[in-house]
Amino acid sequence: MAKEKKQPRPKAEPPKGFRDYFGAEVTERADMLARIAEVYRAHGFDPLETSAVETVEALGKFLPDVDRPNEGVFAWQEDDDGKWLALRYDMTAPLARVAAQFRNDLPAPYRRYTMGPVWRNEKPGPGRFRQFYQCDADTVGAPSVAADAEICGMLADALEAVGIDRGDYIVRVNNRKVLNGVMEVAGVLDPSDPTKFEAERGTVLRAIDKFDKFGEAGVRALMGKGRMDESGDFTKGAGLTDEQADIVMGFMEAKRDTGAATAARLRELVGGSALGLEGVDELETIAALLESQGYGPDRIVIDPSVVRGLGYYTGPVFEAELTFEILDEKGRARQFGSVAGGGRYDDLVKRFTGQAVPATGVSIGVDRLLAALRAKGRLEGRMAGPVVVTVMDRERMGDYMAMASELRAAGIRAEVYLGNPKNFGNQLKYADKRESPVAIIQGADEAERGVLQIKDLILGAKIAASASVEEWKSQPAQFEVSRGDLVAKVQELLARYAG
Amino acid sequence: MAKEKKQPRPKAEPPKGFRDYFGAEVTERADMLARIAEVYRAHGFDPLETSAVETVEALGKFLPDVDRPNEGVFAWQEDDDGKWLALRYDMTAPLARVAAQFRNDLPAPYRRYTMGPVWRNEKPGPGRFRQFYQCDADTVGAPSVAADAEICGMLADALEAVGIDRGDYIVRVNNRKVLNGVMEVAGVLDPSDPTKFEAERGTVLRAIDKFDKFGEAGVRALMGKGRMDESGDFTKGAGLTDEQADIVMGFMEAKRDTGAATAARLRELVGGSALGLEGVDELETIAALLESQGYGPDRIVIDPSVVRGLGYYTGPVFEAELTFEILDEKGRARQFGSVAGGGRYDDLVKRFTGQAVPATGVSIGVDRLLAALRAKGRLEGRMAGPVVVTVMDRERMGDYMAMASELRAAGIRAEVYLGNPKNFGNQLKYADKRESPVAIIQGADEAERGVLQIKDLILGAKIAASASVEEWKSQPAQFEVSRGDLVAKVQELLARYAG
Repeated sequence: MAKEKKQPRPKAEPPKGFRDYFGAEVTERADMLARIAEVYRAHGFDPLETSAVETVEALGKFLPDVDRPNEGVFAWQEDDDGKWLALRYDMTAPLARVAAQFRNDLPAPYRRYTMGPVWRNEKPGPGRFRQFYQCDADTVGAPSVAADAEICGMLADALEAVGIDRGDYIVRVNNRKVLNGVMEVAGVLDPSDPTKFEAERGTVLRAIDKFDKFGEAGVRALMGKGRMDESGDFTKGAGLTDEQADIVMGFMEAKRDTGAATAARLRELVGGSALGLEGVDELETIAALLESQGYGPDRIVIDPSVVRGLGYYTGPVFEAELTFEILDEKGRARQFGSVAGGGRYDDLVKRFTGQAVPATGVSIGVDRLLAALRAKGRLEGRMAGPVVVTVMDRERMGDYMAMASELRAAGIRAEVYLGNPKNFGNQLKYADKRESPVAIIQGADEAERGVLQIKDLILGAKIAASASVEEWKSQPAQFEVSRGDLVAKVQELLARYAG
Repeated sequence: MAKEKKQPRPKAEPPKGFRDYFGAEVTERADMLARIAEVYRAHGFDPLETSAVETVEALGKFLPDVDRPNEGVFAWQEDDDGKWLALRYDMTAPLARVAAQFRNDLPAPYRRYTMGPVWRNEKPGPGRFRQFYQCDADTVGAPSVAADAEICGMLADALEAVGIDRGDYIVRVNNRKVLNGVMEVAGVLDPSDPTKFEAERGTVLRAIDKFDKFGEAGVRALMGKGRMDESGDFTKGAGLTDEQADIVMGFMEAKRDTGAATAARLRELVGGSALGLEGVDELETIAALLESQGYGPDRIVIDPSVVRGLGYYTGPVFEAELTFEILDEKGRARQFGSVAGGGRYDDLVKRFTGQAVPATGVSIGVDRLLAALRAKGRLEGRMAGPVVVTVMDRERMGDYMAMASELRAAGIRAEVYLGNPKNFGNQLKYADKRESPVAIIQGADEAERGVLQIKDLILGAKIAASASVEEWKSQPAQFEVSRGDLVAKVQELLARYAG
């Protein structure tokens, strides 16, 4: 290494908005993603892993979400040619690049899934990180809404595969075309010039998307002149008249008891709009395709209140919501809410090739789904602590390592204490920190007699916490076994707690 | 979306030096890493996933490898405070940061493994990428060489777990202290001032590390005045005299038939160097600990020719080499070579806390190990193509999707063709591209009769390639079954090819 310079010590912390994941946090996520991948694979989706870095040119630099125009990417310039590179901010932009780049080699349609981190150069906040996981599945090159139906069904299957019970989730499906038909009726969409009223429609979309949060009055204010929040901040509205807003609100409230009844109501609302009618037809087709596969309304429903904020959706949109209640930070019961969403976006690949390629897909919010599984108690005990072989005689390290080896050969997680063995209490504290079920102890005297001590740390902890002297006597937390019985006795003990 | 601007189309390609991974490339790597993780976990190592982004301050900005001082990291400045952030270039620097940051919370010693991408701002070349996977296991806070021995044994276990047979690999262990003892004897290390001759020792280390490539003459040239390569490029040498070089070369050639004989030879070579003798003792301890766990010299050996290039190693160093031959690009047989390496580095955490914390670890070259498994034929057939349900009647999409659903419910990967169904030939071409074993076909007439056609695409391909007319007749590649027998018949067919 170069000569030591007198520099201030670096701070031992990650950049703000970044964090580390330890132990079970890593394995639980990996397990969950593996289960999802299995469902995706069963549906014929192939894995894809793109590079984390893209050219800013290919990425389009900013998030395509009109809701958050100021949020950016982490970007830097290449040393040699000055080209701007950036970390991907989602999985859709890289998919568009791959679909364009490999269009002659990939199967058409191309079904792919991908899972991995994305990065956003946003202001971090509590529980809001600048690196997080996404898990996406998309079908590129399939114009038929059968592709959308497939993804909705697959999403329901994936949720059940990771441990969300039927009845604890609902996948809601809507169609942007129906909404656009309603906008046409309301006079804020001109089919002969789709760019007209674009900003107004964006504002309406975002307003509808906030129905749960702001209620009808808030949404109406945002569709009209604008809305003042509690802090006094004013959000400019779309400028719709009350009559126009009535039409849009009618759409929001069009959900009926059955998919057929909802479709009939929507058909009334879109009136003469060709686009709107096309959208209703598509919703009916999706409902029929799902029914033919046995996905009932307890799993997937047509629901006009789902709009999804992103401007780029062009047809069906969908959202998976967890319907069970959890307690929020103030102890109030509330529904868990959305964990996945997606829809059809037919124009994304066009940026590269000039050709429109139909695409549809879903993105699962990995951290939210993990939090839901944790709230449901579905993640406990997936990572057991190791058996710790303690060290009584430093010079018999070989014996201790051999014990750990034997345990591992029998499929038991095991390790030797590798710190300074002088203070035996520290070794037991270490075993405690490791959440070890069992400690192995063998002093010189025991080694000579061909025996060792097995310390049941789970029972030990129970006794320390609550048990009476009688229980302690009847079930000793530490006992001597012959050296040759090490593996069998530890297996026996672990089996007792596995049940 | 914003108004369309007339901009040149972006190029559909990743930045240079980056690539995408498709299908089996993704699952094979994931499978291999899962097997390695299982071995690491069995040894008591816990997973850790640090953020991809670190402050440049925490990272130390440049690779700590004196061999490549000009290679850097991908770095950029924060918008608000101007702080420099960068993508991690390895897994060791983030571990050092975590070990310092969480030193009061982590178990001590802390065993951790991690796997994920790292990024290097290097000039890309053929097969040389700027993003690649590393898979590391380290023990922080264990001064005893038992920790090094554990990692060597675990490395051997991991190689066997992923499919490298015993006999096809060897883990070589050496000790930097022995080499430093030899350097002391040769007069290029002054124990009273370790910074003296640092550059010279760096050059000697790199020279030794290239023994396989340059041979004895090349290494001697680099230890002396320098070496001219075939292209005429001159590399400056360490400036050792012939006598000094003799002493170092003697170390390189100290390997004997048994570990004990090698240790005895090394003891002669380090003469009166206290550091050197300590190193030999450590090697003997490691050998004894490995023997007590049954790791024979067919798996792990003491080998003084292993030095590892990195300047920061302070004690034991180790390397896993695959010993089987593969054909190189010119068709010549050559040994596959190194797939993993590591060693003890006791000073890394000190940067943050001022306190020296002993650490030792290993890094597996994920891509090289995958290439080795591929060369050994251990990766074939791990990802089967889906059964493709073809579409004869667009309006009966629900029936086709139900067929795929039933197959999936029976654990069979299956999908419906979602492209334009008009040209049936395209559907079969698609099935071919998907490497489908079976296609399902049902026209209106068949639907009415309650039957469908199963097309055996594997047999079909065989017949197309080679079979005579007789074989074709005796084993039809397409046959009709009752609709109700779909799953059973496909299972039967797949079972035939699974064996």
